[in-house]
Amino acid sequence: MRLSRFYLPTLKETPGDAQIASHRFMLRAGMIRQQAAGIYAWLPLGLRVLRKIEAIVREEQDRAGAVEMLMPTIQPANLWQESGRYDAYGPEMLRIEDRSGREMLYGPTNEEMITEIVRAGTRSYKQLPLMLYHVQWKFRDELRPRFGVMRGREFLMKDTYSFDLTPEDARRSYLKMFVAYLRTFERMGVRAVPVRADPGPIGGDLSHEFVLLTENGESEVFLHKGLADLPAPGVDTDFGGDLEPLFAERTSLYARTDEMHDEGLWAEVGEADRTTLKGIEVGHIFYFGNKYSEPMGAKVQGPDGQEHEIEMGSYGIGVSRLVGAIIEAHNDEAGPIWPVPVAPFHCGVVNLKAGDAEADAACEALVAELEGQGVEVLYDDTGDRAGEKFARMDLIGLPYAVTVGPRGLKEGKVEVKTRATGEKQEVALADAASMIAERVRDALAVR
Amino acid sequence: MRLSRFYLPTLKETPGDAQIASHRFMLRAGMIRQQAAGIYAWLPLGLRVLRKIEAIVREEQDRAGAVEMLMPTIQPANLWQESGRYDAYGPEMLRIEDRSGREMLYGPTNEEMITEIVRAGTRSYKQLPLMLYHVQWKFRDELRPRFGVMRGREFLMKDTYSFDLTPEDARRSYLKMFVAYLRTFERMGVRAVPVRADPGPIGGDLSHEFVLLTENGESEVFLHKGLADLPAPGVDTDFGGDLEPLFAERTSLYARTDEMHDEGLWAEVGEADRTTLKGIEVGHIFYFGNKYSEPMGAKVQGPDGQEHEIEMGSYGIGVSRLVGAIIEAHNDEAGPIWPVPVAPFHCGVVNLKAGDAEADAACEALVAELEGQGVEVLYDDTGDRAGEKFARMDLIGLPYAVTVGPRGLKEGKVEVKTRATGEKQEVALADAASMIAERVRDALAVR
Repeated sequence: MRLSRFYLPTLKETPGDAQIASHRFMLRAGMIRQQAAGIYAWLPLGLRVLRKIEAIVREEQDRAGAVEMLMPTIQPANLWQESGRYDAYGPEMLRIEDRSGREMLYGPTNEEMITEIVRAGTRSYKQLPLMLYHVQWKFRDELRPRFGVMRGREFLMKDTYSFDLTPEDARRSYLKMFVAYLRTFERMGVRAVPVRADPGPIGGDLSHEFVLLTENGESEVFLHKGLADLPAPGVDTDFGGDLEPLFAERTSLYARTDEMHDEGLWAEVGEADRTTLKGIEVGHIFYFGNKYSEPMGAKVQGPDGQEHEIEMGSYGIGVSRLVGAIIEAHNDEAGPIWPVPVAPFHCGVVNLKAGDAEADAACEALVAELEGQGVEVLYDDTGDRAGEKFARMDLIGLPYAVTVGPRGLKEGKVEVKTRATGEKQEVALADAASMIAERVRDALAVR
Repeated sequence: MRLSRFYLPTLKETPGDAQIASHRFMLRAGMIRQQAAGIYAWLPLGLRVLRKIEAIVREEQDRAGAVEMLMPTIQPANLWQESGRYDAYGPEMLRIEDRSGREMLYGPTNEEMITEIVRAGTRSYKQLPLMLYHVQWKFRDELRPRFGVMRGREFLMKDTYSFDLTPEDARRSYLKMFVAYLRTFERMGVRAVPVRADPGPIGGDLSHEFVLLTENGESEVFLHKGLADLPAPGVDTDFGGDLEPLFAERTSLYARTDEMHDEGLWAEVGEADRTTLKGIEVGHIFYFGNKYSEPMGAKVQGPDGQEHEIEMGSYGIGVSRLVGAIIEAHNDEAGPIWPVPVAPFHCGVVNLKAGDAEADAACEALVAELEGQGVEVLYDDTGDRAGEKFARMDLIGLPYAVTVGPRGLKEGKVEVKTRATGEKQEVALADAASMIAERVRDALAVR
């Protein structure tokens, strides 16, 4: 993509109301633009990151056996009256009246709707287990939206719902999502630890938040160090097999946010194994049994010929929130430092003498070679000053940047900068594309 | 995809309120489920078609030089007060008040918002020409939503906006979209003809509707036959070159809907060249100059050092509507007949003896071979009766279906049915995958 044909309205000044790094950088790097409190337009650079995150989420949902669908943003109130949540839900629910005076709402979540859908289309236990998910915009009318996309009002979420005949089957579905979530975040180049969450009135151990560890998290996390060191289960994990050992390995290690912290249990963790960090919640999974199937009458016939209320769970990932959260985990003074799998482009190419025939030809050939090898390139072909170009590349945080200048070209050399380390290497122009392509491929490999 | 793990709640009965084929079949084939009047959930099968259409729309937008972004669904009223449309817009606008009493709305279109965004990020004519698009859910509070997704209230639309310094440049942007639209619909396996539309107060010839010709269209189209026969410009079209000849070739042939029909001009068309058909509007493009840039003060500095109001155009495609429109163009009594590029899966595999070790193994090997060759497969591994399985395959309309039965297997044969023609062929099991894969690849080739 040529920068001259892209739309990248970067800002020199830091907007006054942006308090945290991700909010500041997303505004400054031209990733988003605020349209109202907590409501953002995703400019081309920001959208590319959002789409990468979505794609990884989808791949791992599909791998775990969930099937994608899409529910609308606007819901009729009557569904929520059936579950009893319409009156219970607070002012965060955006309530709407249509032109005919019918009560509607902008969905903050979809338990009711998916229960209605599965109730209508499922008769027999033979149709279970079933996991359905969608990636859709939701609305929560926060009183004080802040921190940019981290606590917006209109936000993109992936939510999965599981449907099973028995609590034991529901546990299996829960464990599939538990593993899928570990893999999902790891593939984005961050590690999110599963933290025991409040299971609500159902009790049990089937409620976890996934917390991304950062310096500027919203909550404090008390953690057994071993948990942060455990890599996610590999791509060869058999989702049809027994996932209990993987689950036990992780849930046996203490991990709680301040809300659920238990000083007694914490004291049992060896002092050398304890660590206290900040974290950002990026996912939440829980099992809730017949909480919706009972009031809404969602039943299947079991092998015993009797009707059974369907056992359900729900599993959310904050897709738009993750864009901000990943920046919180990976940035420096100059801007975000994108992990390759979620970077808006893998590589920048900076032409120091745009308009010069030789420099243009060298850059264009390099871009074509990179793209031919599967590397996504943002090619700075503008007439801006060199200093501006370098600062912009750092601000948008692409993993690699190749600088092509007339002096280097005379010797057939270009400079390759690795954003994460700041390291700069002089490389033969002929070798640059292959070198970068190999690193990109390696970073994108699904393990 | 195994059908036993998919979610495909087909209906035997035709829902009473579905008047047209696409609405009936989308409900019966388990593609959508109504949640409120004109508001649908997209079940897995329907979503797959929607995503295919979206992907083609994106590819052709990108090819024409448009850049993708994403605007939110909820907009603040003040943007529409700036343009003067807030009071002018009728009751189709879904007006919302948030918890703080601020006036908001669910966007029916995005001219105001995109003008605000480009106004903020563009200073100089050097940043133009610029074309930005997004694919987003919109809401129009129709008094009588009907015909399923063809006239829903919440609908998915692709809208592009062009920004240019001069009317001449704006015309070039318009022509790019004109060509992109011809290609977009053609790639979906349908032909949409550009029909001269009401340009509004600006006048000129730069307003066209794209009308898909069907038996059950909503409007009557008076057409020079030659236009329906013209194929779309090829993939080698140079969008940076002169598109006027392509434009002239098509716009010189008479094409009007009843609204804009001109009996005088119609009489000039030779009788043998005249045809009158039904059509469904699937796209609309128009140039509107400074209609929004003037009241909203969206200006750039020109090469003359003066400020110029930006020349704009907008270009819409009804993405969710197209799912219904394509069915209207391609169906028979049994169900839709999907063109390969938008089919939910390319091929079905029907196991006539699921549970039988030999039949299962043959089917699984065939599915693996098809998928390995890039064919998307829905594998009916259920225990349903053969008649049910065949009827379901016809109802969901996959381009190809392979039936694997114990009798054929003894001779190493399977039956391949082509949905569009109804033709059934006995084929050696060893050859089936390659034969189908070759046809699918050919149908997907971008020309």
